[in-house]
Amino acid sequence: MTDRFVLDLLGVMAYGELSAFERLSSDARFSPSLRDRAVLGRMAVTEFGNFELVAERLSGLGQDVEAAMLPFQPSIDAFHERTRPADWYESIMKAYVIDTISADFYRSVSQFLDPATAQLVQQIQDSAPTSDGLQERLRQMLDDDPRLASRLALWGRRLVGEALSQAQRVSIEGAALPGADAFRAELMAALTRNHSLRMSQLGLTA
Amino acid sequence: MTDRFVLDLLGVMAYGELSAFERLSSDARFSPSLRDRAVLGRMAVTEFGNFELVAERLSGLGQDVEAAMLPFQPSIDAFHERTRPADWYESIMKAYVIDTISADFYRSVSQFLDPATAQLVQQIQDSAPTSDGLQERLRQMLDDDPRLASRLALWGRRLVGEALSQAQRVSIEGAALPGADAFRAELMAALTRNHSLRMSQLGLTA
Repeated sequence: MTDRFVLDLLGVMAYGELSAFERLSSDARFSPSLRDRAVLGRMAVTEFGNFELVAERLSGLGQDVEAAMLPFQPSIDAFHERTRPADWYESIMKAYVIDTISADFYRSVSQFLDPATAQLVQQIQDSAPTSDGLQERLRQMLDDDPRLASRLALWGRRLVGEALSQAQRVSIEGAALPGADAFRAELMAALTRNHSLRMSQLGLTA
Repeated sequence: MTDRFVLDLLGVMAYGELSAFERLSSDARFSPSLRDRAVLGRMAVTEFGNFELVAERLSGLGQDVEAAMLPFQPSIDAFHERTRPADWYESIMKAYVIDTISADFYRSVSQFLDPATAQLVQQIQDSAPTSDGLQERLRQMLDDDPRLASRLALWGRRLVGEALSQAQRVSIEGAALPGADAFRAELMAALTRNHSLRMSQLGLTA
């Protein structure tokens, strides 16, 4: 019998990857060049592959993939509605912020996962070597147009705020995150700290 | 020295696949179920893979992929703007009509291609075993809700009209399709005939 927490985590991951795929590939159309469209498209395709990996694991555990995702659809959709990028720069920033915060989140909760699930989570993180590329693309954008900095800094704060409320909502709506409240509070603090560090590295005030 | 026609064909294919990827994956969000979203997403990912194959071939021929696609961007974008699906049913119908007409088109012009390009075109057709699945899905939709028939028949006529003008525009704007005007006229007639046949098979008046 698989732990409820693990099934919820897989459900939220599956829907998260599926919707990231759709959002990224829709956003791709606003890229300044066909080359950038292809880059964003490639990232979207990676997300879809991750969705398929998680879906396969859910099926392997005897779960209905659709049923596992459904409880998380409203809050993830709402998150995306509240964080619609206004242009391509904001899309890239959103992809970077979500990618890195999710990676931190999954790394932290891995300790509560059975070995097979932990391995899947690791595999998905490894298959997404996108955040280095995104960071580089952001640096380049900021070099090309330093006026972007204040707008992207503001956007970064908005994204991290929404992402953290989202993470909390998921852990309240779904089966609770294991561990005491203290662990959850520490996790949120750590996610915020790492995010701020990354923003500073980009020269943005977090 | 590669024939101008071949380079144009590869350029139009590359941009066609890239934009089909983006449109399909954006449309996926309107699917009635998460299962259908995943199906449309998988199709979109296949289109992206095809884009990558064509892009690789262009690079192999010493061409800049972006430059090869650019001349065809306005007309393909305009085509998509004129054929925005109103809902998921129209998305599926659009995917089916475009998929099958493109397959017919590429099959017809294959005789003018060098063996390597002809093989690539064949490989792409083979990697897209989607039209059978789409046809089945359309049948099922029409069985479930027969009132869809008149709307989808109308939509099918609109799509084929736009697709054929598109095919003609491409062959005028780009390097001309080889062969005499008679070949082009016969090609258009054949595309229309095959489309009508497929619509009849779905029980739709073409």
